[in-house]
Amino acid sequence: MAFLNDNFLKLRAGYLFPEIARRVNTFCETHPEAAKRVIRCGIGDVTEPLPAACIEALHKAVDEMGTPGKFRGYGPEQGYDFLRHAIAQGDYRDRGIEVADDEVFVSDGSKCDCGNILDIFGHDNQIAVMDPVYPVYVDTNVMAGHTGPGNEFGGFDGLMYLPCTPANGFVPEIPTEKADIIYLCYPNNPTGATATREQLTAWVEYARAHEAVILYDAAYEAYISEPGIPHSIYEIAGARECAIEFRSFSKNAGFTGLRCAFTVVPKGLKALALNGERRPLHPLWQRRMSTKFNGVSYPVQRAAEAVYTAAGKAQIAGLVAHYMENARILREACAAISLDVTGGRNAPYIWVGTPPGIGSWDMFDLMLEEANIVVTPGSGFGSSGEGFFRISAFNSRANAEEAARRIVGMSF
Amino acid sequence: MAFLNDNFLKLRAGYLFPEIARRVNTFCETHPEAAKRVIRCGIGDVTEPLPAACIEALHKAVDEMGTPGKFRGYGPEQGYDFLRHAIAQGDYRDRGIEVADDEVFVSDGSKCDCGNILDIFGHDNQIAVMDPVYPVYVDTNVMAGHTGPGNEFGGFDGLMYLPCTPANGFVPEIPTEKADIIYLCYPNNPTGATATREQLTAWVEYARAHEAVILYDAAYEAYISEPGIPHSIYEIAGARECAIEFRSFSKNAGFTGLRCAFTVVPKGLKALALNGERRPLHPLWQRRMSTKFNGVSYPVQRAAEAVYTAAGKAQIAGLVAHYMENARILREACAAISLDVTGGRNAPYIWVGTPPGIGSWDMFDLMLEEANIVVTPGSGFGSSGEGFFRISAFNSRANAEEAARRIVGMSF
Repeated sequence: MAFLNDNFLKLRAGYLFPEIARRVNTFCETHPEAAKRVIRCGIGDVTEPLPAACIEALHKAVDEMGTPGKFRGYGPEQGYDFLRHAIAQGDYRDRGIEVADDEVFVSDGSKCDCGNILDIFGHDNQIAVMDPVYPVYVDTNVMAGHTGPGNEFGGFDGLMYLPCTPANGFVPEIPTEKADIIYLCYPNNPTGATATREQLTAWVEYARAHEAVILYDAAYEAYISEPGIPHSIYEIAGARECAIEFRSFSKNAGFTGLRCAFTVVPKGLKALALNGERRPLHPLWQRRMSTKFNGVSYPVQRAAEAVYTAAGKAQIAGLVAHYMENARILREACAAISLDVTGGRNAPYIWVGTPPGIGSWDMFDLMLEEANIVVTPGSGFGSSGEGFFRISAFNSRANAEEAARRIVGMSF
Repeated sequence: MAFLNDNFLKLRAGYLFPEIARRVNTFCETHPEAAKRVIRCGIGDVTEPLPAACIEALHKAVDEMGTPGKFRGYGPEQGYDFLRHAIAQGDYRDRGIEVADDEVFVSDGSKCDCGNILDIFGHDNQIAVMDPVYPVYVDTNVMAGHTGPGNEFGGFDGLMYLPCTPANGFVPEIPTEKADIIYLCYPNNPTGATATREQLTAWVEYARAHEAVILYDAAYEAYISEPGIPHSIYEIAGARECAIEFRSFSKNAGFTGLRCAFTVVPKGLKALALNGERRPLHPLWQRRMSTKFNGVSYPVQRAAEAVYTAAGKAQIAGLVAHYMENARILREACAAISLDVTGGRNAPYIWVGTPPGIGSWDMFDLMLEEANIVVTPGSGFGSSGEGFFRISAFNSRANAEEAARRIVGMSF
């Protein structure tokens, strides 16, 4: 008699984004005229075409795949050397950060990596997450049996939630209790907050003192515009002994539909075996990826390599500038009607306080019905997100400008 | 203090194919002249370029990704409707087999799916595998903690091994004990054996009687040439209530480097929750893929769709015919020197008995040193593979013919 994984039954019926899609669909069906005006600032998905350098690299690689003698079958599960090298050099060593080529593991997405990384950890770790939080960190721990049941606060028993609030600038305090695995995301999704060098240093010191592992999600690194803000956890001394970093080509180069990301596992990073021995995690992740993954599509890896060319870098800078100008336009529109606004300066997300007495989902409905704008209710990211909503700056300029006009016309 | 997953420490140091690569590299370094003559018939990787229909579809989709208004970001995690429909129609309904579009889950590889499927099952299932066996089934169960330690027979305690031997035609007998999850692979990797309708019917009856789940790997389905052999487990009445099927574009259309596969989870398939309730597995896999996966690269999905066009089908038939002619050439060469040969008629693998007194790895070394041919030692697939080696027919015609000449020239 085959048993299913009961932990799945603890999950909420509606993952955040499907629930948003459901409400938007219902609205559009019942308001066909307004449906034509709907502007989507909900899900954090890019809208602009891939950089020309990537398109060129894709065509070239596709031609190879159709040519005898140039065709490539199975590639290395961890990614081709050409891409691992381009990443380690371009994103790290050129910026004075020590990362070896073979510490970079190329994958088909940060969402996959964030979930799959749990394969190499035991089941008895205390897991800490920021609140609000990217739901994938939580749900994958629920599935793996690392939590108790869902609770009345919209969270799960057994997880340590680190509240991110206006009072702490959306950067949580270092916990007084022990955590073994800590998810940090900077620039943050959903709040758009960043952490200073001092704040990250405190986290690294905490992790080293407790022999904890930090899972550092830096998918939005390219959006940091202010000087002095760390782009990588490895800018902090000691982080190579306590942190795994996730990066993606989705948000800088627009690869959400093309699929390529990477994870850095430093060779000096260790965790505890049951016999008390400290062992490196690098061989475990190497084995995990060799056994349960078969590498990223070859043309896609060539497209990712093109991100590091001079042309690629310039085109990506243009994409980031485009979305960040949208962020400015939307941020200022919210500020113009006296909403509390943060984020949108080093991240493509604007985090907005709802007017007094209006909850996150009520605000979602109001924005949809009155302004025909889809946002993301803050409470969907955790109980500390209640009283906020997220606006994504991923859009065309015309849409961002029109959304801003409609926001300015709202009154509460 | 972060704990690692101790189950990884049970795994053998050398996964089969890395160990082969190590031995081949050593030989090539110490025999630079012979190195130039080496023909690789080891790993089951395609050698011929992608079908023209797929190349064309890739170029077209890449152009869309570079064009405003045609660019696509995140796709559905389970695959685009156009591909799910093409698969369900082309591989199933057109052949009289009931599979709905939304029972098809598009992924980036069968290796990934075979491993990831364990996410939706509990930890208390009795797992049964064929012996010899594709190592991924075993290793992913070891990682998930479903086995005891490795044992003296080269297997793992706690797994049920189903011996596939010349005596049973490499199709295992139905076990007398209870198994909850059973991996079956037909046409088989590594033996090339197929199962008859009667044999598969017996498995389906066993699974239904025990409320077990069959994980049916049909990655080599396109190579079935003899009439009457089932191409899908769903050709067997009742299989929709007890089986999940894995298929791939790797071996028919040569997508090993492009990455696309799919898994069919029928909506009527149920497993047991801890409270004794029987619940469908389809929503669990849907949730698993939504949460830990973000869809296959859009151009790759368009290439997979092209597999089902008239041109695509004709080109794939040509590829299959090419490799199967290699199989015939290699099979006859082995027979010519009186080796016991099976497989290679409905699968691209030839399963060859070693001469008396020569073990699998010894034969590997002998083939490498005397004929400069890389094969796969049967014992690498499990203890019942001892005394056999696998020859892959994935090669150019010239290589297959040259390998055949060298085999015929060997003497034992």
